[in-house]
Amino acid sequence: MKFEMITGGICAVKGVSAYGLKDGKYGLTLIAGKGTAAGAFTVNKLRAAPTEFTAKQIARGRLSAIIANSGCANCFTGEQGMRNAERMAELAATALQVPKAEVAVLSTGSIGTQLDMALIERQLGTVLEGVTIEPEGSMAAARGIMTTDTFPKEVAVRLEAESGESVVIGGIAKGSGMIAPHMNTATMLAVLYTDAAVATDALRSCLQDAVNDSFNMVIVDGDMSTNDSVLVVATGQRGPIGIETFRNGLTVVCKALAKLMARDGEGATKFVEVRVRDAPSVADAREAARAILRSPLVKSAIFGERIDLVCGRTIAALGSACITGELDQNKLAIGIKSETAEVLAVQNGQFLKLSESERAIMTAKELFLTVDFGTGGGAEATAWGCDLSYDYVKINAAY
Amino acid sequence: MKFEMITGGICAVKGVSAYGLKDGKYGLTLIAGKGTAAGAFTVNKLRAAPTEFTAKQIARGRLSAIIANSGCANCFTGEQGMRNAERMAELAATALQVPKAEVAVLSTGSIGTQLDMALIERQLGTVLEGVTIEPEGSMAAARGIMTTDTFPKEVAVRLEAESGESVVIGGIAKGSGMIAPHMNTATMLAVLYTDAAVATDALRSCLQDAVNDSFNMVIVDGDMSTNDSVLVVATGQRGPIGIETFRNGLTVVCKALAKLMARDGEGATKFVEVRVRDAPSVADAREAARAILRSPLVKSAIFGERIDLVCGRTIAALGSACITGELDQNKLAIGIKSETAEVLAVQNGQFLKLSESERAIMTAKELFLTVDFGTGGGAEATAWGCDLSYDYVKINAAY
Repeated sequence: MKFEMITGGICAVKGVSAYGLKDGKYGLTLIAGKGTAAGAFTVNKLRAAPTEFTAKQIARGRLSAIIANSGCANCFTGEQGMRNAERMAELAATALQVPKAEVAVLSTGSIGTQLDMALIERQLGTVLEGVTIEPEGSMAAARGIMTTDTFPKEVAVRLEAESGESVVIGGIAKGSGMIAPHMNTATMLAVLYTDAAVATDALRSCLQDAVNDSFNMVIVDGDMSTNDSVLVVATGQRGPIGIETFRNGLTVVCKALAKLMARDGEGATKFVEVRVRDAPSVADAREAARAILRSPLVKSAIFGERIDLVCGRTIAALGSACITGELDQNKLAIGIKSETAEVLAVQNGQFLKLSESERAIMTAKELFLTVDFGTGGGAEATAWGCDLSYDYVKINAAY
Repeated sequence: MKFEMITGGICAVKGVSAYGLKDGKYGLTLIAGKGTAAGAFTVNKLRAAPTEFTAKQIARGRLSAIIANSGCANCFTGEQGMRNAERMAELAATALQVPKAEVAVLSTGSIGTQLDMALIERQLGTVLEGVTIEPEGSMAAARGIMTTDTFPKEVAVRLEAESGESVVIGGIAKGSGMIAPHMNTATMLAVLYTDAAVATDALRSCLQDAVNDSFNMVIVDGDMSTNDSVLVVATGQRGPIGIETFRNGLTVVCKALAKLMARDGEGATKFVEVRVRDAPSVADAREAARAILRSPLVKSAIFGERIDLVCGRTIAALGSACITGELDQNKLAIGIKSETAEVLAVQNGQFLKLSESERAIMTAKELFLTVDFGTGGGAEATAWGCDLSYDYVKINAAY
């Protein structure tokens, strides 16, 4: 199996056309592409109207179009909110001449205000004219769903099985703050297309696995959104491919989008990868990695570039995580890598003496933290996040 | 039953003498006072050496002295760390001529470095000379355990039962950052004394109840420490008092100390109380209150004085909390009070239109948020915390 990163985002996928626009805070995106479909949604108990609506729509296993808006989350908006979500689906169905039952609706933005439906109708006219199979359609669609994101996020991969079959998987995503575990990152939206032919059940299983290893492992701030949604549609225009090959390919694309979210974390000055090794179970490894990246203290210490504080607080976070297997202080090791250096900071439960030049590894913009349980469990997990800076507070005191 | 706030902290309690000093980052506190004793400790799985040591000591049900240091947490320090914790107990036992088995040891500060035992021995000489039953002893003891705290914390209450019996309960505490739920606030230490005669079992039960309603409901940042400890000693010098009266009195003192921690939260510009009402169960009410105060987004919005964002993010936090009972968006109400104003912001699941003067309630330095489930469950809980400011990041990037 071979992967090749290609350009074009979702428009690199046969049978997909898209466009989007952003008027200040308010954006609208429209995507056309028929196929089998699956979704993953936030487990927040106060889910937004479009999230509830789309979860029902996608249960039928097919989608023909997606309409998404930014600026208003259409959350905590009661019956009016649900009518507006349905109305968005209707507008997209009419515009693209597809069945309303095959339209998904996504929203992201402020909670507690009603959608401005007149604005959405006006924007839809412009967006519909722009819908295209060219690469700029995907980039415009990615831009239309941005909120505090500082750049649009898209990824595409060409996947070649050993048999020579080749398909494309492309995705767009948004997400910068309110990012935390459980489906369920946080208002993060991701839309994935593939021209592979994949049955709905297989698509669901592949999506859940891919989401578990990617979006569910991104933490910006530990807040879980009411609107998180990931959708995948398989147009089937290039025929079938082995299911395990597809599962791996989908995971690669989801991980790439997830890392873009971590890189664009609100106020982030550093990208941080936490890899947990030799844990008692995958569940423990995941929980450990997330607990470390959830900690405001660990994140502040990364911002402050203090390796001693990062290690001490990583240990406190690890001890407070919901780990069910063995955690032995005397076997723990912590290492930190950058692009150019590598430092072992904790070994056999002891802080090692570090030279000034070793401590300077913390000035790197990309840090890779490895936490080794050393208890022989062999399980691994990787999570992605960022530091906690003054700008996180600034952005969130105002948005 | 009557409560009266009095001065003197732990030295208001008959049979207690204390002193402490702080040399820059490093402090030492020594307290003498014999009696039945109980403790509550962090559930962090990587507990510090003194925490493990003191949990074992207190299992015997009696204490005669407490020695506490600040600046070094003596956590993640292996066998050497445990030997140093024991050595601290020995030093205090010799100094005060009490059995080593009746000495508790508390530490707070940086993780991963060994104690400077020579410094502790030197400081102990000075502290021992200062030990006094006068009120300044309590204040000095409270100062000796400070880390990022900006003021020493002490409380004392005279408790009068209807029968006319009267006892005193006094406490000192420290805690400013790494403050989160589970015993188990975060490096928070609290030491309580009473001159009431209370049997060990009753003391344990009263302490756990008091801790659940007080320290376990304080959240500064959601990080759980490796060293959190609360100790209570009953000297019995004023005789017995009804157990329920004592339980209430202890809870009052613990809540007062807990609120002082929230007020002194790292970088805090506002004190925030969250009261959850009419929840399905006390467990749900507690979890809801803590989830709201744990949210960096809610806390940033409080710092930004934006009532709309506070309400929207409170809803997202509530929906993501581990609530097992009914949570109905259409019944939710959110109100905010200050010393001088009161605003109903959300009612029957709808955001109410607020005037500019109503929104200005957010400029108050003390805010009381009420979240009403409205589902008829009738359960309540209250939690205390603060906002998330630039200074939180600054303090934690460096300490």
